[in-house]
Amino acid sequence: MEGDLLKKIMEAVEDAGGRDEKAVGPSEASNQCELPEFVGAGIGDTVGLVIANLDASLREKINLDPKYRSIGIVSSRTGGAPHVMSADTAVKATNTIIASVEFARDTKGGAGHGSTIIFASEDVSDSRRAVEVMLDELDENFGNVYGCDAGHIELHYTARASFALEKAWGAPIGKAFGITVGAPPAVGMLMADVALKTANVDIVTYASPSSGTCYSSEIIITFTGDAGAVKQAVLQAREAGLSVLRGMGQNPLSTTSPAW
Amino acid sequence: MEGDLLKKIMEAVEDAGGRDEKAVGPSEASNQCELPEFVGAGIGDTVGLVIANLDASLREKINLDPKYRSIGIVSSRTGGAPHVMSADTAVKATNTIIASVEFARDTKGGAGHGSTIIFASEDVSDSRRAVEVMLDELDENFGNVYGCDAGHIELHYTARASFALEKAWGAPIGKAFGITVGAPPAVGMLMADVALKTANVDIVTYASPSSGTCYSSEIIITFTGDAGAVKQAVLQAREAGLSVLRGMGQNPLSTTSPAW
Amino acid sequence: MEGDLLKKIMEAVEDAGGRDEKAVGPSEASNQCELPEFVGAGIGDTVGLVIANLDASLREKINLDPKYRSIGIVSSRTGGAPHVMSADTAVKATNTIIASVEFARDTKGGAGHGSTIIFASEDVSDSRRAVEVMLDELDENFGNVYGCDAGHIELHYTARASFALEKAWGAPIGKAFGITVGAPPAVGMLMADVALKTANVDIVTYASPSSGTCYSSEIIITFTGDAGAVKQAVLQAREAGLSVLRGMGQNPLSTTSPAW
Repeated sequence: MEGDLLKKIMEAVEDAGGRDEKAVGPSEASNQCELPEFVGAGIGDTVGLVIANLDASLREKINLDPKYRSIGIVSSRTGGAPHVMSADTAVKATNTIIASVEFARDTKGGAGHGSTIIFASEDVSDSRRAVEVMLDELDENFGNVYGCDAGHIELHYTARASFALEKAWGAPIGKAFGITVGAPPAVGMLMADVALKTANVDIVTYASPSSGTCYSSEIIITFTGDAGAVKQAVLQAREAGLSVLRGMGQNPLSTTSPAW
Repeated sequence: MEGDLLKKIMEAVEDAGGRDEKAVGPSEASNQCELPEFVGAGIGDTVGLVIANLDASLREKINLDPKYRSIGIVSSRTGGAPHVMSADTAVKATNTIIASVEFARDTKGGAGHGSTIIFASEDVSDSRRAVEVMLDELDENFGNVYGCDAGHIELHYTARASFALEKAWGAPIGKAFGITVGAPPAVGMLMADVALKTANVDIVTYASPSSGTCYSSEIIITFTGDAGAVKQAVLQAREAGLSVLRGMGQNPLSTTSPAW
Repeated sequence: MEGDLLKKIMEAVEDAGGRDEKAVGPSEASNQCELPEFVGAGIGDTVGLVIANLDASLREKINLDPKYRSIGIVSSRTGGAPHVMSADTAVKATNTIIASVEFARDTKGGAGHGSTIIFASEDVSDSRRAVEVMLDELDENFGNVYGCDAGHIELHYTARASFALEKAWGAPIGKAFGITVGAPPAVGMLMADVALKTANVDIVTYASPSSGTCYSSEIIITFTGDAGAVKQAVLQAREAGLSVLRGMGQNPLSTTSPAW
């Protein structure tokens, strides 16, 4: 993502600057958070919080059953699919539900999405655990995001989809599930075509700038099938996507490091 | 906002460059505007213009009653709530109406909104005055916007809401009104929860990336109540929001300087 | 567009960096594309591809008549109207149809749109030719895009609109057609007012941040009329738009070089 480079530049500019102290206004900076609601932060400007007993009027606004007193909420500026994949692992591992998955048009000037995922539970310790598990999974899932100045590609695969993938893209629970993302959108279209022709998989969703995305510069498909077929489709789509970005004179690199 | 840092960098790069002169094309640069429609510019790439007698087909497109011949129009790249707050002061002070409030997904790679607000009047001098008042108010209202690389928070408070706040968020006219904004969205959710629990206030609107925003990376609530309660809610939400951003390793700073 | 400056900065930072080689993961970088689907790349992070026999389930998702086996797809990160203008020339010159025109909220932190245009044909050679013609036209059409840090303006004119302009904005086929774009939106409103008052033209569409755009920071109008009137309207709007941007302290420059 461009965000990381931009961040480096901005930090350099900020360090060079220095600002005068203020006489009025809020409390001074301390670079740490004492709030019990703060769980942790992660890649992609991700932050995870818990609220033990969500205000009743907010619970109503997010259409949450009153029996769930507690929520865990994880938001990012950069990252949609890696966050849903991570939340899918978290919801499998904990006694929580996925209350909502929302995407924003963000990535700090990049082509894609940020995301906000809300877990809910009767006991706050379960929501906290879900947020912790999700934050721990992010680095691995960002290994399948390859970024460059002109765009990015993403490949995601699970042998067994759960409730986060169901909420976000209607994944059939318990089945193998794959996601391909390409930006600019033409890259995503070729990846989709390659994925669907490579193996015997069934398309679940198709999203493009004007339909199914938040006006992002991406074409995204999701698909299901036998585990081997889904994995093979994802791997072939990766080669096609990287090849096109290189043809544009780019050098797409994994955001962290690829597991496969 | 990241925009300001980016601007510095870009100016440096542009100064370093220098471009060849062009032989064809439009008139040369002069760094000033002779047009009678130009009123002024301000923070957040804000520009304010007046049109004395708006073209009839445009008036129809924006659903404006023909009795209003004149409009004042103020647009920004960065800033939604500070602009609505400033327009609220302007509409109180002048013989104008608020024809429309629109938001864009912008902030030049940041997490939030730009805005476009149209005043209308029978006499162009009233629209001009409204634009002038609004531009004068911006710096103060940007004092309540705290930005950093990962996101931003905003707090806005008025003892008496008027027609701009009504148009944008359905504020009850004449009552105290508060706004909290947090980005990434999880920050805004905690601020909302803190605001609503701090004092006896009633939520008016709730907006999140997929509902009520332009796919921005924010959660925004507005609320009303007794003046003291609204102010207290806003102040407590500020502490919570700043604390979370600091927990992310950030140093959020007021865009100008905070009045409270 | 800011994108170009940002690109320079990023390239500098990337060159300075250097990254460790990876042991696992996809094939190594080669900076070229061997895929037969790759046609070419262009300004605005534009990439053009062809797919000789689009997968049937994708054809269904994009609502394409099965008689069109082949598609050409051109996507950009930066550029909406210049791409539609270029596609309009391409569809006139080839035996293809315009299957779809989609816009994204992009420009890499700028105020405007990216775009994705799909050509379809029975024979892949026709789609390939359309993509080639479109890519060849881009530089000229970007000459009418004037960018600066605070925003941009665009002016487009054709003596005879064809199917791409019809698909994107309902242009009447075979008639003169003009487009004015201004960002921030107030700039676009003044340009629209000037265009409509300058000459006897009829407005076709009006788009603003909350209606008809992808939440971009622009006001865009399209209009038709006699060729001379449309051209005159566009030229006068250009002067107004440049003047306002200069009044904001900016120096808007053509992205390539203006033909008129």
